[in-house]
Amino acid sequence: MSADGTNALVRQTAQFLHLYRPPAIEGDFKRKHIISVEQFRRDDLDELFHTTQTLRERVAAGDRELSRLGEGRLMASLFFESSTRTDMSFQAAMQRLGGAVVSASNGVKFSSVYKGENLADTVRAAGCYADLVVIRHPEIGSSYEAAYYLDRLNERIVTPTTVISGGDGAGEHPTQALLDLFTIIDLKQGLQGLTITLVGDLTYGRTVHSLAKLIARYGAEDVKLCFVSPPSLRMPDSVIDFLNQHEIAFHETDDLFEVLPETNVVYWTRIQQERFIRQADYDAVHDNFILTPGVLNQAPRDVILMHPLPRKHEMGTPNDHDILDQNPRAVYFQQMENGMFVRMALLAKVLGLEGV
Amino acid sequence: MSADGTNALVRQTAQFLHLYRPPAIEGDFKRKHIISVEQFRRDDLDELFHTTQTLRERVAAGDRELSRLGEGRLMASLFFESSTRTDMSFQAAMQRLGGAVVSASNGVKFSSVYKGENLADTVRAAGCYADLVVIRHPEIGSSYEAAYYLDRLNERIVTPTTVISGGDGAGEHPTQALLDLFTIIDLKQGLQGLTITLVGDLTYGRTVHSLAKLIARYGAEDVKLCFVSPPSLRMPDSVIDFLNQHEIAFHETDDLFEVLPETNVVYWTRIQQERFIRQADYDAVHDNFILTPGVLNQAPRDVILMHPLPRKHEMGTPNDHDILDQNPRAVYFQQMENGMFVRMALLAKVLGLEGV
Amino acid sequence: MSADGTNALVRQTAQFLHLYRPPAIEGDFKRKHIISVEQFRRDDLDELFHTTQTLRERVAAGDRELSRLGEGRLMASLFFESSTRTDMSFQAAMQRLGGAVVSASNGVKFSSVYKGENLADTVRAAGCYADLVVIRHPEIGSSYEAAYYLDRLNERIVTPTTVISGGDGAGEHPTQALLDLFTIIDLKQGLQGLTITLVGDLTYGRTVHSLAKLIARYGAEDVKLCFVSPPSLRMPDSVIDFLNQHEIAFHETDDLFEVLPETNVVYWTRIQQERFIRQADYDAVHDNFILTPGVLNQAPRDVILMHPLPRKHEMGTPNDHDILDQNPRAVYFQQMENGMFVRMALLAKVLGLEGV
Repeated sequence: MSADGTNALVRQTAQFLHLYRPPAIEGDFKRKHIISVEQFRRDDLDELFHTTQTLRERVAAGDRELSRLGEGRLMASLFFESSTRTDMSFQAAMQRLGGAVVSASNGVKFSSVYKGENLADTVRAAGCYADLVVIRHPEIGSSYEAAYYLDRLNERIVTPTTVISGGDGAGEHPTQALLDLFTIIDLKQGLQGLTITLVGDLTYGRTVHSLAKLIARYGAEDVKLCFVSPPSLRMPDSVIDFLNQHEIAFHETDDLFEVLPETNVVYWTRIQQERFIRQADYDAVHDNFILTPGVLNQAPRDVILMHPLPRKHEMGTPNDHDILDQNPRAVYFQQMENGMFVRMALLAKVLGLEGV
Repeated sequence: MSADGTNALVRQTAQFLHLYRPPAIEGDFKRKHIISVEQFRRDDLDELFHTTQTLRERVAAGDRELSRLGEGRLMASLFFESSTRTDMSFQAAMQRLGGAVVSASNGVKFSSVYKGENLADTVRAAGCYADLVVIRHPEIGSSYEAAYYLDRLNERIVTPTTVISGGDGAGEHPTQALLDLFTIIDLKQGLQGLTITLVGDLTYGRTVHSLAKLIARYGAEDVKLCFVSPPSLRMPDSVIDFLNQHEIAFHETDDLFEVLPETNVVYWTRIQQERFIRQADYDAVHDNFILTPGVLNQAPRDVILMHPLPRKHEMGTPNDHDILDQNPRAVYFQQMENGMFVRMALLAKVLGLEGV
Repeated sequence: MSADGTNALVRQTAQFLHLYRPPAIEGDFKRKHIISVEQFRRDDLDELFHTTQTLRERVAAGDRELSRLGEGRLMASLFFESSTRTDMSFQAAMQRLGGAVVSASNGVKFSSVYKGENLADTVRAAGCYADLVVIRHPEIGSSYEAAYYLDRLNERIVTPTTVISGGDGAGEHPTQALLDLFTIIDLKQGLQGLTITLVGDLTYGRTVHSLAKLIARYGAEDVKLCFVSPPSLRMPDSVIDFLNQHEIAFHETDDLFEVLPETNVVYWTRIQQERFIRQADYDAVHDNFILTPGVLNQAPRDVILMHPLPRKHEMGTPNDHDILDQNPRAVYFQQMENGMFVRMALLAKVLGLEGV
């Protein structure tokens, strides 16, 4: 044991954010770990989204050839925290391509003691068996750590393995951002000239960070981002800096109704009460961040309402949910279904499947 | 939030028993949600059971074409309460047809708070990814709720989805009743003239309700049902009314030995001690509801003994189990295997698979 | 209930070690339950390992025919205790052969009350649905019990089922021993003349018992086993007797460095602190049973370092792990990957797949 005692036993997952640098796609997805939206250029995204559309058409047409493309390929699903949607979406994507899925019958456990051991070694176990590992883990840096160790493992074994992040603690959730951007482009025929309004907890919301950055990477003309949050939950400086570097226009406010009339896309997320130290602070803003059917009616006719789901009180009561769900402007279920098609495209490209 | 406060947050699952009406099969299974035995007519059942027999023969013969019929089709398994048997049976059925199964690696959780949200939205998430959802949930009305929301979802997405109930709280368990009825007809060459004795807790037993009603729907000549239970755990009025409407003869008693000599089929179930308020009441009847090898010996030679499994003390000690299991009249394992074949037939028909 | 009351409700799993005798392979694997290393002769092992090598080459070459060999075959995964590695390894093996895997979405639970009921009946449920059951259970004798009941079940149902042990309480772990022996033979071109040193808790270590016995069954010339453990954790008499019967040379010591210079294969395992009654006893030996990079450097150049994984402090700190992992002599990841290939070979042979 090293001089500084027990602390040395705990490998710091977050340090892998610095130890490992995700590879740029640059037109070639094959065997590239997918960890950050910063890996993608606009033409990579256009290519991915084109494949997504093609695969969606083939699924809708019941094309049985699809389910032979990935024959013999294995994906391991390592979800150290529950995320029924993301997990099922990846499993469905792999299996609709004809691939198979391995997951531990009793799930994988996240233990905060000696956690580094479990993560690095569990990922390498999956890496020994599967061609591709999808990892979701509550700690930031976990997918970087997975990629770091898989690169070393791949030198030693017969079947090399690639990792795709399914959510990296408070860090990134790249496939969520990909499906969000695809949905906007798909329903709005591109990004040009759109005003996209992100609402909710913008400080801690992983999905809004990834989406804002991915829109910046895509870099359409005249796109404008509006960020609506309480002052205490604004978009972090790191994202703001990223947008400035990419010369994307944005506007911050705590008043939804200031920006709603000019908004083309509303991206709604939840504010958790626990983020507020004083109950009074929560109560003061609370009502501004609940999307009821009445609020949606104040948006332009052609607005689309997105949400990463799951949703709770931020869309009002279950009765409110039912009313919103019937509104054609509410596209969050299409968005969720698109998630499967985007992941199919990504899996096909990372695995290098022929015939896609 | 609505005027009546927090209660409005809780959607009442049971209300969907009234909001949603399961479609009658009437010769066409394709894309019909399967929720209640009342959806089936006799000729629907004859058709389903014919397909079941054919599929059983093809599995036994190792017919490899079978595993290509369902290529590219996905079933999602949403078990909000554990039921290893039913879950594995559906998974095996889907995969023996060549389809694939999606389930959350860490399972899905049933939370009594804000439960409506979870159920309706989790079902729709699965609906976005899969062609078919099997749901098991501890609340009555859950599969009705699933069907209600999937019908609305299917208007909005590319891949429509059908639900099959794997057990609906204290309500119905239609596929269990289907496999039970198939087993009786298969081993007794029909229902005509049979005396079928259902034993145990007939008030709370979901499987005995569904089976009694399904036998009534099938409506064979000279079939007679005997219900053996303590007076406090008799068959509920709703089932009794259903039998009367369908003009099925039945007889209620608390004395097994009164009806055993004329019985052709014994369907045994457990009485849970918790159903009795006073220990003395439980102790008084307890011994009458334990099927030991000695009890079975008092039945006619050609009787068949069925049980929905799992079993506990209602079949005596593990040693008693071993003795009963060796008796050719005990057919509960064939019954369990038939469950897979019946579910294969049902999946094939609901998915509209060609070549079945 | 029988005269001796509640105890009669508990079937003793360990008694099945005497009630059931695993069949010798003797050149024919088809439909033989795999429970003990004692079932294998040297030529059975040579045949299995030859198939393992062939399958490894076919996987590496991306041979798509592989994923059609097991079409339509089902494996059920019954893990009553968590073992992410073994579970994923079997699932991957089955699916790389084109077979499918059934497992309970919420896992199977091990309950110490009325446990016999659960085990025997759960295994038979899986047996009704699948062609093959892999079982891992915390009680010794569990896989014997599974085999005993499946033999009886198979007389009654359409689709007979075979069991493979994935770890039998404190008893055997035959597939771990098979992959260990394969790895040694693969990397050392046979066993002849090797000195193989097993280190750690040799009293309670299931894997070291199975490996020592399997080496004895293989019976190479001039092979020598060294057992390094604290005096209180020596290899049990049953294994020692087995080695004597098979005329295998062995040497026991508590001093690693006495045998390390002549060692060709180091097989390292963990000593758990709980094995020691007094903390002082643990502290006294503790440092001798931690494999740091410095220790490995004292071994011969051509040594290979094996470990069944998972590993903890017995390989030092996570930093030590990282250093060891980069050392070409550390072969535990290849060993783990070989586990999948050995299991593929075993599944293919037990299922009687053609074209393997």
